[in-house]
Amino acid sequence: MVEPGALLYEGKAKKVYATPSPDRVVVEYKDDATAFNGQKRGTIEGKGAVNNRMSNLFFRLLEAHGVPTHFVEELSERRTVVRRVDIVPVEVVVRNLAAGSMAARLGIPEGTALRRPIVEFYYKNDELGDPLVTPDHVEVLGWASAEELEEIRRLALRVNEVLGEFLAAQNVRLVDFKLEFGRTGDGRIVLADEISPDTCRFWDLKTGEKLDKDRFRRDLGGVEQAYQEMMRRVEGGLGR
Amino acid sequence: MVEPGALLYEGKAKKVYATPSPDRVVVEYKDDATAFNGQKRGTIEGKGAVNNRMSNLFFRLLEAHGVPTHFVEELSERRTVVRRVDIVPVEVVVRNLAAGSMAARLGIPEGTALRRPIVEFYYKNDELGDPLVTPDHVEVLGWASAEELEEIRRLALRVNEVLGEFLAAQNVRLVDFKLEFGRTGDGRIVLADEISPDTCRFWDLKTGEKLDKDRFRRDLGGVEQAYQEMMRRVEGGLGR
Repeated sequence: MVEPGALLYEGKAKKVYATPSPDRVVVEYKDDATAFNGQKRGTIEGKGAVNNRMSNLFFRLLEAHGVPTHFVEELSERRTVVRRVDIVPVEVVVRNLAAGSMAARLGIPEGTALRRPIVEFYYKNDELGDPLVTPDHVEVLGWASAEELEEIRRLALRVNEVLGEFLAAQNVRLVDFKLEFGRTGDGRIVLADEISPDTCRFWDLKTGEKLDKDRFRRDLGGVEQAYQEMMRRVEGGLGR
Repeated sequence: MVEPGALLYEGKAKKVYATPSPDRVVVEYKDDATAFNGQKRGTIEGKGAVNNRMSNLFFRLLEAHGVPTHFVEELSERRTVVRRVDIVPVEVVVRNLAAGSMAARLGIPEGTALRRPIVEFYYKNDELGDPLVTPDHVEVLGWASAEELEEIRRLALRVNEVLGEFLAAQNVRLVDFKLEFGRTGDGRIVLADEISPDTCRFWDLKTGEKLDKDRFRRDLGGVEQAYQEMMRRVEGGLGR
């Protein structure tokens, strides 16, 4: 069993610890919740455990479908060993329906279906409020090469296909989600960060009920229950 | 001589009149100046005449270099006949140096050189504050087809080459500029709107002095003089 070493980094929802191996770190998921670039803060009981387990189940599912990820080994309810990667400073959002910031910015009713999935890039910078950027910005400002961006886009759309199909069978519509990617020591692009109700919009396929962090962002109540319900459906779908 | 008919539209800086021909309109350039999506208002004496004449000179130069435009005939100091087109609701910005909104949004010092020109698209919608959009948004939301967008991008970069080279010879650096494109009755994409100190950033190549609307936006003084100086340099470069 890998014992976490020194704390390397503490973010809004996760801590990262060193391990004896230079190319492995331990991620620990917290129950702390923030929204609107940290302006809203709270706690979602049990969130860390859900996000850890759900991310790991999704990563294994994606690996089985040819998407390389940083996942190595689940250590405990909240801790997981992952590959240490150099994070590409671009948040990648895939959207199947207009919702959230896209609906607001472009004046489109939330829930409007998109003709095909849209991939958006946001510059990962809290001080600037994670601004939307174009592929041109990413390439010219040197955050990723054109080839890396093409690979990131391809992988993001593949994640959308695999998870969208899996979740539809669990009666969940994958509305949109945010991914982060990293470079391994040998320069390969792999999926990193997490995939959870914190980073996705999940709507019940029949009722449209929100089963994600929007219940916290928008004060809809039933936040913990939504995270647990999503966990049940994902585990059910994987026969666990 | 075409006499303007009914007023079809009045914008912040221009009026558009009908003509007896259904595929021609008359544009009239005003001295009214606005900035920051209409929050700042004023008058720049002689601006209408400069913008009319400069736009027409640039359009003729661009036509001579293979860029199709809406320009037909200059009627008077402030009035020009142009082809009536269906405007693509996307503002196209080409940048050679980081400045203005790009510098602010991405935390880059104004004047930072870009490795290659960047083309940005903004959704033309005053209520939403003309938000930055990606090519994906433009295509999926149906504002322009993928083919039209490719043609718009190609033409915008060609405008950058032609004007950048011409202006450098007049001791002016073309920092960035905004274009609009339209569809003709037969579905061709042509350059429309205007190209003037209202829609471009012009910096003196040696001193860096601003010779454009930033003097008005930023209360730098010498606004009228800057417009006249740019007019002199452009006419001088064309031997007029």
